[in-house]
Amino acid sequence: MVKRRGLMLVLSSPSGAGKTSIARTLLKQDTQLAMSVSATTRRRRPGEVEGKDYFFLDEMAFKTKINRGYFLEYAEVFDHFYGTPADTVNKTLNEGRDVLFDIDWQGTQQIKASARQDLVSIFILPPSTQELERRLLNRAQDSAEVVAGRMAKAADEMSHYPEYDYVIINHDLAQSVAAVQTILDAERLRIDRQQGLSDFVKQLRQSSSA
Amino acid sequence: MVKRRGLMLVLSSPSGAGKTSIARTLLKQDTQLAMSVSATTRRRRPGEVEGKDYFFLDEMAFKTKINRGYFLEYAEVFDHFYGTPADTVNKTLNEGRDVLFDIDWQGTQQIKASARQDLVSIFILPPSTQELERRLLNRAQDSAEVVAGRMAKAADEMSHYPEYDYVIINHDLAQSVAAVQTILDAERLRIDRQQGLSDFVKQLRQSSSA
Repeated sequence: MVKRRGLMLVLSSPSGAGKTSIARTLLKQDTQLAMSVSATTRRRRPGEVEGKDYFFLDEMAFKTKINRGYFLEYAEVFDHFYGTPADTVNKTLNEGRDVLFDIDWQGTQQIKASARQDLVSIFILPPSTQELERRLLNRAQDSAEVVAGRMAKAADEMSHYPEYDYVIINHDLAQSVAAVQTILDAERLRIDRQQGLSDFVKQLRQSSSA
Repeated sequence: MVKRRGLMLVLSSPSGAGKTSIARTLLKQDTQLAMSVSATTRRRRPGEVEGKDYFFLDEMAFKTKINRGYFLEYAEVFDHFYGTPADTVNKTLNEGRDVLFDIDWQGTQQIKASARQDLVSIFILPPSTQELERRLLNRAQDSAEVVAGRMAKAADEMSHYPEYDYVIINHDLAQSVAAVQTILDAERLRIDRQQGLSDFVKQLRQSSSA
């Protein structure tokens, strides 16, 4: 086996398209893949473990780290900051393992700007509007108004699909998981990820022309 | 199913690395993939069928077509010309089917220059020098000198691996076929190959925000 550099796998989708189920199944079946752990300024909830669920930071520490370029991407959501520490991700990639991100198009754009070569981005689409609405209705006891708002937000998010490398239309969970796994397996064979190749080929060439 | 544009799959390798066996198995198992048919100026041999094995042309016709940009790539080998007609390849790609090429690094560079967006290129490496030599010795009753010459040529060809998108080290035929199939399946999910996406998403967005 030639040593390889890990990759960053980004899954984005409007909520209700099935991204979370795909990610969960994928993490179970692929032992080379780990979920990215974000830093956040929100309070720790009961049962949450520092360094496993999140890295918990106060706002001043978080903002200092933003200024120092500590985050691959970050966002402010409902008065709390969330961000991906570059150092922990890089450590994993250097070990030849891959990191999975569940982030939106804005986070994806930030990673693209700073680490394009390590990024593999997939956009998950719902199979139809009816199915998207059904999943959003099933999810919680929300009012029709809230669901309508989410549908409008989904329409907005879907406009960003052309910024991704791959698109999967999620007709069926098992098929979509298989498609993401196929992309992951193929991307691992990309030349710039197989870091030991140059030594391997050098050795082959020397002994072939000897 | 969203309509897609086919891709050009190039397999290159030094002779003896197993490329031909991989291509043959792949063509049998993947019905969306067809072998590219070259034009050539060499004489038709008994049993060869025009348009299936080759398009047979005389040298003047071939050279005229070169000047008219008719070929995606071409080369002169032992006084004969060989080339890939762009029109037949494009017809296949437009039908949403893929074309397999068994060409060297020079042909690959020519396709890259004219049709980068449709090209997926894979370089096949032998697992070791010993194995490469064993396969070249088994292949024919060639003298040690001829085999040594081929080994030197292989060493030269292998220096071009960094010009490819993917590398597969051919330890085992079945595993290597599976790896090429994985790359092919993943590349078919690339956003720029799924041509019907823009209409599909437009429809999703309109009905979601209605």
